[in-house]
Amino acid sequence: MSPTLRVGVIGATGLAGQQFLAALSGHPWMKLVKVAASERSAGKRYAEALLDGSGRSRWYVGEPLDPAFADLTVEDAREMTADGLDLVFSAVETEPARELEPRFAAHVPVVSTASAFRYEPDVPIFLPGVNLAHARLIDAQRKNRGWKGFITPGPNCTTVGLAITLRPLADAFGLKLVVMTSLQAVSGAGRSPGVAALDMIDNVVPFIAKEEEKVQLETKKILGACSEAGITPHGALVTCTCTRVPVIDGHTEAVFVALERRASVEEAKQAMRAFGRDFLALGLPSCPQELIHVSDAPDRPQPRLDRERGAGMTTTVGRLREDPALENGLKYVLLSHNTKLGAAKGAILTAEWLATQGYVG
Amino acid sequence: MSPTLRVGVIGATGLAGQQFLAALSGHPWMKLVKVAASERSAGKRYAEALLDGSGRSRWYVGEPLDPAFADLTVEDAREMTADGLDLVFSAVETEPARELEPRFAAHVPVVSTASAFRYEPDVPIFLPGVNLAHARLIDAQRKNRGWKGFITPGPNCTTVGLAITLRPLADAFGLKLVVMTSLQAVSGAGRSPGVAALDMIDNVVPFIAKEEEKVQLETKKILGACSEAGITPHGALVTCTCTRVPVIDGHTEAVFVALERRASVEEAKQAMRAFGRDFLALGLPSCPQELIHVSDAPDRPQPRLDRERGAGMTTTVGRLREDPALENGLKYVLLSHNTKLGAAKGAILTAEWLATQGYVG
Amino acid sequence: MSPTLRVGVIGATGLAGQQFLAALSGHPWMKLVKVAASERSAGKRYAEALLDGSGRSRWYVGEPLDPAFADLTVEDAREMTADGLDLVFSAVETEPARELEPRFAAHVPVVSTASAFRYEPDVPIFLPGVNLAHARLIDAQRKNRGWKGFITPGPNCTTVGLAITLRPLADAFGLKLVVMTSLQAVSGAGRSPGVAALDMIDNVVPFIAKEEEKVQLETKKILGACSEAGITPHGALVTCTCTRVPVIDGHTEAVFVALERRASVEEAKQAMRAFGRDFLALGLPSCPQELIHVSDAPDRPQPRLDRERGAGMTTTVGRLREDPALENGLKYVLLSHNTKLGAAKGAILTAEWLATQGYVG
Amino acid sequence: MSPTLRVGVIGATGLAGQQFLAALSGHPWMKLVKVAASERSAGKRYAEALLDGSGRSRWYVGEPLDPAFADLTVEDAREMTADGLDLVFSAVETEPARELEPRFAAHVPVVSTASAFRYEPDVPIFLPGVNLAHARLIDAQRKNRGWKGFITPGPNCTTVGLAITLRPLADAFGLKLVVMTSLQAVSGAGRSPGVAALDMIDNVVPFIAKEEEKVQLETKKILGACSEAGITPHGALVTCTCTRVPVIDGHTEAVFVALERRASVEEAKQAMRAFGRDFLALGLPSCPQELIHVSDAPDRPQPRLDRERGAGMTTTVGRLREDPALENGLKYVLLSHNTKLGAAKGAILTAEWLATQGYVG
Repeated sequence: MSPTLRVGVIGATGLAGQQFLAALSGHPWMKLVKVAASERSAGKRYAEALLDGSGRSRWYVGEPLDPAFADLTVEDAREMTADGLDLVFSAVETEPARELEPRFAAHVPVVSTASAFRYEPDVPIFLPGVNLAHARLIDAQRKNRGWKGFITPGPNCTTVGLAITLRPLADAFGLKLVVMTSLQAVSGAGRSPGVAALDMIDNVVPFIAKEEEKVQLETKKILGACSEAGITPHGALVTCTCTRVPVIDGHTEAVFVALERRASVEEAKQAMRAFGRDFLALGLPSCPQELIHVSDAPDRPQPRLDRERGAGMTTTVGRLREDPALENGLKYVLLSHNTKLGAAKGAILTAEWLATQGYVG
Repeated sequence: MSPTLRVGVIGATGLAGQQFLAALSGHPWMKLVKVAASERSAGKRYAEALLDGSGRSRWYVGEPLDPAFADLTVEDAREMTADGLDLVFSAVETEPARELEPRFAAHVPVVSTASAFRYEPDVPIFLPGVNLAHARLIDAQRKNRGWKGFITPGPNCTTVGLAITLRPLADAFGLKLVVMTSLQAVSGAGRSPGVAALDMIDNVVPFIAKEEEKVQLETKKILGACSEAGITPHGALVTCTCTRVPVIDGHTEAVFVALERRASVEEAKQAMRAFGRDFLALGLPSCPQELIHVSDAPDRPQPRLDRERGAGMTTTVGRLREDPALENGLKYVLLSHNTKLGAAKGAILTAEWLATQGYVG
Repeated sequence: MSPTLRVGVIGATGLAGQQFLAALSGHPWMKLVKVAASERSAGKRYAEALLDGSGRSRWYVGEPLDPAFADLTVEDAREMTADGLDLVFSAVETEPARELEPRFAAHVPVVSTASAFRYEPDVPIFLPGVNLAHARLIDAQRKNRGWKGFITPGPNCTTVGLAITLRPLADAFGLKLVVMTSLQAVSGAGRSPGVAALDMIDNVVPFIAKEEEKVQLETKKILGACSEAGITPHGALVTCTCTRVPVIDGHTEAVFVALERRASVEEAKQAMRAFGRDFLALGLPSCPQELIHVSDAPDRPQPRLDRERGAGMTTTVGRLREDPALENGLKYVLLSHNTKLGAAKGAILTAEWLATQGYVG
Repeated sequence: MSPTLRVGVIGATGLAGQQFLAALSGHPWMKLVKVAASERSAGKRYAEALLDGSGRSRWYVGEPLDPAFADLTVEDAREMTADGLDLVFSAVETEPARELEPRFAAHVPVVSTASAFRYEPDVPIFLPGVNLAHARLIDAQRKNRGWKGFITPGPNCTTVGLAITLRPLADAFGLKLVVMTSLQAVSGAGRSPGVAALDMIDNVVPFIAKEEEKVQLETKKILGACSEAGITPHGALVTCTCTRVPVIDGHTEAVFVALERRASVEEAKQAMRAFGRDFLALGLPSCPQELIHVSDAPDRPQPRLDRERGAGMTTTVGRLREDPALENGLKYVLLSHNTKLGAAKGAILTAEWLATQGYVG
């Protein structure tokens, strides 16, 4: 398809970084050539950098570590350069992202899972198939900042399934109000320390710091209209409550919407099922066969049964029904994989699209 | 206070029935004198009726079985009479309730956890402290049906916390719209078979048969106005999605409301904290010190930490905040104990109140 | 390799049967042509037979249902014949197995996961790569019973990992004593009703009916010597305690052994790693690359991380260390997939081997 | 009984320290007068010292915080003195214990849950009712070290149930070999960070650092004979494997023993049931009515159902049966509460006994 892209991952030893490595293993036209992490890991083989004090490997991703990646030497992220790279994936935390990402963006595109730049006016929050028209901002960003590259963060993992499923409804019927409650998996919180087992056995924690604000803001930005002047957030009202439940992977969201125009259940299902055809037709390596799978079963989606649909890249919608309590109301439940579509694999899919559009290399 | 009431429990061997026995142990003025279950158990000592084929006890309540109750002889519920009883608690399933409860109600009051009669126009769904004015229906019910006694079912366990917390908001600020998502415990589903472990490890099930319809209907009935002609359901629009999560006891609910008049967070907290003072002042044996506890902690309520507040009879509210997406909007999270306040102990508290008002004996 | 075998599955709608269907999907030289279940399902399409009263699918296997199998018509197992079949896989419960399996074995080989015939003197309990020499019993069985086919049950799922890991130790160092405690997954108990969620949240159940007796008996039979006269159970003393823990798939076992001759940790690891080379060399379709994977990590095996090794067909051993409390003592922890190697896929691997040895077709 | 003892708790803000506060609330003759923690907490009200950066309380014990304790001012443990104290409870980690405990022991008795001094020859590891004869070492310790007070650590939480249940067997039948596998709760690992939820959903971790060595060493020391010269460890061989399972509280242990003399199941149950009568007769405030409860149910003990027996101070034994694989063999399953008997409440019971024997004040 395209010539091989040489990519680097910063924040490579954390859980988000590991997910990048898992997703890049065997990629048909991306080749991982550099990995970076904190000073502590610098100079070690990647596999060794994962060992804790007791010799336990902190490789927490389900897929095995690619032996080729195990032998890469970890660089200090503050000292690594963009030399020899066509693209950088960033899996660092918000604070270090503020310094590290611009340093790389001066030279090459940076596709990130960090939130540091999500709310800047000249930065699009790409969600593949949903708002690729926001790519218009990239040129503005380069110009504003004097960069050869650019930064495109993906959305918060909880925003992902919500924005994907709202897009076809907004397009077809207009969107006025969104009320959402999330039941989020623990993997989203990383692992050092992440969520404590004491909080997740026989329990629910109905609070995730800053999550609701992110979802409310990002959903409207992603669904917004983009001109050269920037993005106008979508006018729908969006409110949510975010909770953590004892699930490893897969965020479940109960969604209630009021639409501009009435949609029957069948019309809504049809809109979701038809969504993204043009994007799917590109046949990108990390793209699933459906962006949204609508289930007619009465008791789906369920995280353990549905999260791996489309290799973790398809959002599953179920229980779609009319909601007489809201104006032109619908309600449904969605499930999206927070550490695949909602993190590294989603970022890689974005990068694949950017590459096919000539933004990379 | 009052002379001792002699009570019977039908459906005594199931999980709901066990909860009645646990709650009646040591009751200051109710004495359990009869227990009934299916034909299979009839004639056995209660403790023996709990044994399964392998000799395992199916006593699943946390509190130990009262030794005095262990020795009661189980009667066949279809043959047991109301003789010698002042009151019957019913913990049977919906279908048998249709036949069994009227048979006892012909003679004595029946306080039930079954849904069989909840939706009859002359039957109140009592929620202690919330809608006791609905007691006016009791006389109508007796007259309509020619019974000496009457039937008063409690609400579905998911309705309980919702209706309790909406009552002070509706009274003080008017209520227009309620959007709720529940995260329900597995104990609500009983145990034979109840929820399968395969569904509740690393998973959420976003569907509970008939639950949403019950919550929507019952909430409006409980909050409704009662005249001699019957109950006029409250005019608020109510919608919900009910899910099952890996929690033993305690239903968590994320609630979004639109009010008639704006309420600040402090005003709403104040209304909830002041709620039920007159009822609390009666000092009934099963009544907690607060009907609603409002927590200011950012991450509460949590089922494992808050469900036993007030010995399982206090509903905990947390995360109360304004919701700009809704008209005069508020959102909050509540937690109520589904098998205590939401089942047997709630029914016993209702019976205590009925007794003090002269409806029993 | 060999011509395509036409196979049938009886008990096809249960959890064990579903696992057969999942494992047969895409099999290079087995073709599923008949499925049977109870009378209730007879005559329905397989996919429809899985629906419960509320329209929920009871397909509980992680892998999706093969669309080709969804359209098979379910037959009544009591009426299905062996016509057109080369082989029958049996996933029925013990009681129906007593009647159904002989009826098919009269005509074709029956490879079963049921325990009904495991303890008959002329029936081998095959564990692929471990005791294939017991195939000598097949001719005796045919002669004794006058069957054209035969019955070969696989071991109880808890026996599987134990017998596989003991075999190389017994062969190399002699085996005197085995003390084992299992921590078993819930999927082993099926699903109707299976294990209740109430028992598996914040809990362990230290009892599984009849499990310990099976493990103790089967381990000695599998490791025993086989002559034409039958199997002489291995002389080692074997004791175990079996518990159920909140894990979906994968049985963990803590094993302590006393050997005839001292083995260093390295020698024991070496014996396990070298185990089964000849069998692996056959390259059977369901055979993994290692029968036993020995991990040097301090904290493995773990069910969630190790159960899918070798597509669920490799047993993982970790924490192998000397045990000074026992004579020539070793201790280790093992993990084997109870519903893959320990059930349908193990049975299919056995059938593959039987086919290559001329016992089928 | 005795005059009120003034006690202090060091390490008061951690999970173990919180358990001391929960257990001291309402104590009839111990009064908590000082609490100490790290420098970070010094000077704050105790309730404030528990708040994290987001205002969330880190009070993780099930029982509510005693309001009287909430107002105590936390001192810096390195600067707090023994002035005004009769006794210090230590809940600090091993490393700080090495420095802090001797500083207090110079003046008053220190009863500790830390392991720092457990393996010193002049330090008894007290387990109430099991080895109080080891109190003879206290005088030697005082003399050796020139202290007015002394240090008595309790055992590791996993040793507790094992040593208690072995004591009556060893006394009555002689003890030769112990093989144990533990299934441990997560609360034993504390909370910062403690066990990660990612490790405890759908998983078991078969490794706890240093745990097995502690259990093996401590069990033999506790069961050992004590002369003025010190303790001679018991001669039994003890081996174990320790695992972590998704349970909040309550360590389950599967135990296999070989005895010097044969014991029938009934004799062994009898020995366990009769155990500790003299100690129980003292009627100490934290002492349960039974040290060991032997259940005849086939499927007990279970952590969620049995851990609170005797307010968390009774060890439950079940599934006691003969084990033909071992010489005079028995096997059983035990359950003890790791954060009550196995931690603070156990230490308080020890202190109660020491006080009645004149070792305190």
